[in-house]
Amino acid sequence: MDIRFLGTGAGLPSKQRNVTSIALELLPENGSVWLFDCGEATQHQILHTNIKPRKINKIFITHLHGDHIFGLPGLLSSRSFQDGHTPLTIYGPTGVKEYVETSLAISQTKLRYPLYVEELTEGVLFEDEQFTVSCKLVEHGIPSYGFTVQEKDKPGQLQPEKLRACGFPPGPLYQQIKQNESITLENGEVLYRKDFIGPDIPGRKVSIIGDTRYVEELASFVEHSDVLVHEATFSNDDEQHAYDYFHSTTMQAAKLAQNANVTKLVLTHISSRYQETDSLLNEAKSIFQATEIAHDFSVFSVRENKNT
Amino acid sequence: MDIRFLGTGAGLPSKQRNVTSIALELLPENGSVWLFDCGEATQHQILHTNIKPRKINKIFITHLHGDHIFGLPGLLSSRSFQDGHTPLTIYGPTGVKEYVETSLAISQTKLRYPLYVEELTEGVLFEDEQFTVSCKLVEHGIPSYGFTVQEKDKPGQLQPEKLRACGFPPGPLYQQIKQNESITLENGEVLYRKDFIGPDIPGRKVSIIGDTRYVEELASFVEHSDVLVHEATFSNDDEQHAYDYFHSTTMQAAKLAQNANVTKLVLTHISSRYQETDSLLNEAKSIFQATEIAHDFSVFSVRENKNT
Repeated sequence: MDIRFLGTGAGLPSKQRNVTSIALELLPENGSVWLFDCGEATQHQILHTNIKPRKINKIFITHLHGDHIFGLPGLLSSRSFQDGHTPLTIYGPTGVKEYVETSLAISQTKLRYPLYVEELTEGVLFEDEQFTVSCKLVEHGIPSYGFTVQEKDKPGQLQPEKLRACGFPPGPLYQQIKQNESITLENGEVLYRKDFIGPDIPGRKVSIIGDTRYVEELASFVEHSDVLVHEATFSNDDEQHAYDYFHSTTMQAAKLAQNANVTKLVLTHISSRYQETDSLLNEAKSIFQATEIAHDFSVFSVRENKNT
Repeated sequence: MDIRFLGTGAGLPSKQRNVTSIALELLPENGSVWLFDCGEATQHQILHTNIKPRKINKIFITHLHGDHIFGLPGLLSSRSFQDGHTPLTIYGPTGVKEYVETSLAISQTKLRYPLYVEELTEGVLFEDEQFTVSCKLVEHGIPSYGFTVQEKDKPGQLQPEKLRACGFPPGPLYQQIKQNESITLENGEVLYRKDFIGPDIPGRKVSIIGDTRYVEELASFVEHSDVLVHEATFSNDDEQHAYDYFHSTTMQAAKLAQNANVTKLVLTHISSRYQETDSLLNEAKSIFQATEIAHDFSVFSVRENKNT
């Protein structure tokens, strides 16, 4: 599970930072890539990665400002040209359906795959055997959402030393134990999986929060995230400005990370007024040490919490 | 008058060629830049040029396929952020107004300048004291237009040797003669401008043709262009494919250039299937020698035809 930043700027593209898009790469988990936001030229950024547009099967839109959606029609269209035949679902605020449908209709774009658009309401918006995705309104002047991707716990790892201690040498039996709650040997003996595997591997949690003012109550929503991605459009010095424009500062994001006991905080949506970001990082670190600032094409791996 | 190519690819962006946009830079002529088409990430390409978005006051759209329009909402929005306060007019096929208005409304983009959208009908669509812009339907499956920008003839240059021969030394008189059809000297003598200036400087003509099949009748429309910009999506070897997909080949574009007696032909909208374009160029040159192939950021200057 990797988080790859495709655009980390605010409002306008610059030479350093494109407008917002974040890829949650789940190829080992379920063979897919999920996008969060799709600012203009997201498909151009993808040209410089290994992401195959046809692997993108879910796109989550935090809010409808142009720097978060103007890349959608082009990406949807190019995915079709580039052998995308499998369904794709967009989850976004009310209005995203009209925007996408109008853009595709007027440009006479005919997609060769089924496109579904689901408009958001707070709560669980998607669940399968591996993941639950939820969303919650934040505070940005227009409807803007934060998302959590909660992986479900998985059975622990096989502990071969325990099997060896019981006199079972490595062989097909190990795989059978792993795949079944219990197995019966030829001699009638019953082996229980729980006796030979470690504790459950806790699912990972990634939280990606759209443009927002500091919202204290968000802490419970993003609690214990392995990675919290939060906007930090402005420096702490510009706190009033951030408030006026419905954005957050570095230190506000850090405060949320601290209150929510997350493992790592990654700041993005950096205003182009800051050419140098060391001081922004230091502001955040003064409150929450495990902070990083995303740059275009930064990748953060979210590793399994084995044996915890 | 410079023609700067911002995107020269067909259908999809690639690392080599962005989707279509062409800037006609008229800063010395009238202080403005006119865009022809605005594919996704045109504003990103502009970041790598000296073009100021606020100087763009007309955008002509050849047709509504996504690779020609998906950069419009972002550019319009960024122009507003970047001190664009003067009016901007979009000229495009029916539907462009709905596309632009829907995109801006749903993204809650509030422009700080007046935006006008004029939907095209064939003929003269704009005329002022310097330029006449006309459009004509071509053949692309959906309504697609070619544009001509015809500069008006200008009075010839002052010929100081003639003034000197009549006994007038250089001085303010020279400027007066240049600016007035006739002037009366203190002694009552009348001087006529026509006696002291060279022949009219013929206006330049630039033709920019949207995606199209080969249309023989277009020759009279683009006749005597200083520069004809024409699509050449495919090689001559793919002529049937070009026809089926409503596009042109290199040699068809060259044939039109030859029939229309243009000065220079510039090919663009090159399919990404051609990594190497020398053979495409040679195909065209076998019919029309004065051909060039545009690359992203290519610039072609259209010089005044002085003293002809």
